[in-house]
Amino acid sequence: MRTKAAVAFEAGKPLEIVEVDLEGPKEGEVMVEIKATGICHTDEFTLSGADPEGLFPSILGHEGAGVVVEVGPGVKSLKKGDHVIPLYTPECRECPSCLSRKTNLCTAIRSTQGQGLMPDGTTRFSYKGKPIFHYMGCSTFSNYTVLPEIAVAKVREDAPFEKICYIGCGVTTGVGAVINTAQVEQGSTAVVFGLGGIGLNVLQGLKMAGADMIIGVDLNNDRKEWGERFGMTHFVNPKEIDGDIVPYLVNMTKRGADQIGGADYTFDCTGNVTVMRQALECSHRGWGKSVVIGVAPAGAEISTRPFQLVTGRQWIGSAFGGARGRTDVPKIVDWYMEKKIQIDPMITHLLRLEDINKGFDLMHAGESIRSVVVY
Amino acid sequence: MRTKAAVAFEAGKPLEIVEVDLEGPKEGEVMVEIKATGICHTDEFTLSGADPEGLFPSILGHEGAGVVVEVGPGVKSLKKGDHVIPLYTPECRECPSCLSRKTNLCTAIRSTQGQGLMPDGTTRFSYKGKPIFHYMGCSTFSNYTVLPEIAVAKVREDAPFEKICYIGCGVTTGVGAVINTAQVEQGSTAVVFGLGGIGLNVLQGLKMAGADMIIGVDLNNDRKEWGERFGMTHFVNPKEIDGDIVPYLVNMTKRGADQIGGADYTFDCTGNVTVMRQALECSHRGWGKSVVIGVAPAGAEISTRPFQLVTGRQWIGSAFGGARGRTDVPKIVDWYMEKKIQIDPMITHLLRLEDINKGFDLMHAGESIRSVVVY
Repeated sequence: MRTKAAVAFEAGKPLEIVEVDLEGPKEGEVMVEIKATGICHTDEFTLSGADPEGLFPSILGHEGAGVVVEVGPGVKSLKKGDHVIPLYTPECRECPSCLSRKTNLCTAIRSTQGQGLMPDGTTRFSYKGKPIFHYMGCSTFSNYTVLPEIAVAKVREDAPFEKICYIGCGVTTGVGAVINTAQVEQGSTAVVFGLGGIGLNVLQGLKMAGADMIIGVDLNNDRKEWGERFGMTHFVNPKEIDGDIVPYLVNMTKRGADQIGGADYTFDCTGNVTVMRQALECSHRGWGKSVVIGVAPAGAEISTRPFQLVTGRQWIGSAFGGARGRTDVPKIVDWYMEKKIQIDPMITHLLRLEDINKGFDLMHAGESIRSVVVY
Repeated sequence: MRTKAAVAFEAGKPLEIVEVDLEGPKEGEVMVEIKATGICHTDEFTLSGADPEGLFPSILGHEGAGVVVEVGPGVKSLKKGDHVIPLYTPECRECPSCLSRKTNLCTAIRSTQGQGLMPDGTTRFSYKGKPIFHYMGCSTFSNYTVLPEIAVAKVREDAPFEKICYIGCGVTTGVGAVINTAQVEQGSTAVVFGLGGIGLNVLQGLKMAGADMIIGVDLNNDRKEWGERFGMTHFVNPKEIDGDIVPYLVNMTKRGADQIGGADYTFDCTGNVTVMRQALECSHRGWGKSVVIGVAPAGAEISTRPFQLVTGRQWIGSAFGGARGRTDVPKIVDWYMEKKIQIDPMITHLLRLEDINKGFDLMHAGESIRSVVVY
């Protein structure tokens, strides 16, 4: 069949809206009509050419929601008409990682997904007879796409596509980093570096987890109001303080009998390796957990004195919020529908597919939190 | 009173055996007759002058065992005749750290201890009328020493001093890093870098925890036999393999259905920041925990790509094996007496105080695992 898609033909060039050919689902695969898709920094990272693993031509997009329109042979857990969210981190429930109970990083289709291919080593997309690569196993910038069954979360049917598509990446990444990865408890202190589409979701995860002091750090003062809307209790603009941010935050977090200071939990949502170090070092001696969420430029390295670890700080990371997609994503959709978390105010722009490049422009200008394309 | 002690008058010079003056215990303090003390790398680190916080003149030594000979006013948990192990990490059970249930790093007397002083800001030792600093709150290179009550673990009376002194640092640091910090489970795979006095204790901790594959890494082939004595199942000398140690170890740890490889737990017992990075990077994607135990040179930094953390590896540290001294050290003494752990073979040399400098020579030459001074 043919489907409308925004194709990334070359790094650094705008996407082009064309009709591409799409083969039907093979064994263990389903075809999904994408109803809405968010535009995420990771799409931008790849489109820009900065991603060393980026492949072209490809159909980007990994934050979608839609409806199953066809199932391939052997598919058991999904049927035509199911409302779904594609998963760039699948959940096969059979690989050593899924069975470990210690990670969400399913490895069942990792190698082919990294090569822009379906699990059988081929692509379903083509244009003028030439193959087009899949992206993160999702390719939600196409109106129709094909996905492995294990990379699809079935969700409730009353949830609006143009909101829950954001759960396909940003919401889950932020909220999940708090709930699944850091496992923040009631009464904690926390610092969130970077109040963009991920950072705001970390904030609301912290509020949900019952953190008492939730400090947001951003260079953009406009983000103060944004942060407060999602649970932030204090805002710091590093450009507007005297001296180094680390002792500043350590002082801020001295509470009651504890005159050592440092946050119980810190989160980097910037991808900046200098900020990652600050996040570690402003966490509390003895037990501070610092979670790296942001994606750093290729080759960039984090560093610190090992003394920071020996005195009890933990440096950890989170991918897709530590969520097992098929199990946890439907729960997060429930949380949204039950108003435990907010999504609506973060979706600042709705666009048609034809205007998708405008979504990237808004991101560059810092004007959007999330732009969503509605098909 | 007067007591015989090995005094570090100057960095880089041998210790001098002299008679020093020792004041009796003040409020909340006890005097202990040290019966035996180990000589640890940390003593060497400070004596050499490499420790930026080293103070002189001081009485080094922090790995001792002895008997309480006098208690100061207000002391409730100890009495004359109690057998004890001095604690360089105290346990006050009242500070925010002790009450956090998340760390063993009691902060009750941290600042004075770091200045080489008792909690009241003075020193009990002097020589020819001039003050001599305490060291790590212990100063076990003196036949008699004074300690805060909260820095003393009461232990059973049938345990031999010249063995259990080693529990005051090396044994607890190694075994505790496995049991308390990493919390290794049955069937795990582990890599231990550096098979000295700490590394061998990590090995026996791993054996006790039920790890299946226990890989030891050392540049010294003599350590293979040592490692095997304490539970090591595989030995790797990085000088004798082709290529980089990280992929080598990742390959070694591929087991059964898991063809990703990497160890569940890795431990750095070298203090070398390059090795610390290798330890992190050979831990398992998704859940590998890498524990820094070694003390790095002043100013040295660890680094890695943040991708290592985002894909699920955890970089953590351990000080005094995560042990709460007054609570956990008596249990470790029990484990030794019940033969759950070994100490005797690691005590390779017994010395008189007069020969203490020979202990440092044996350490430099790599000939000893542990030298113990018996008073």
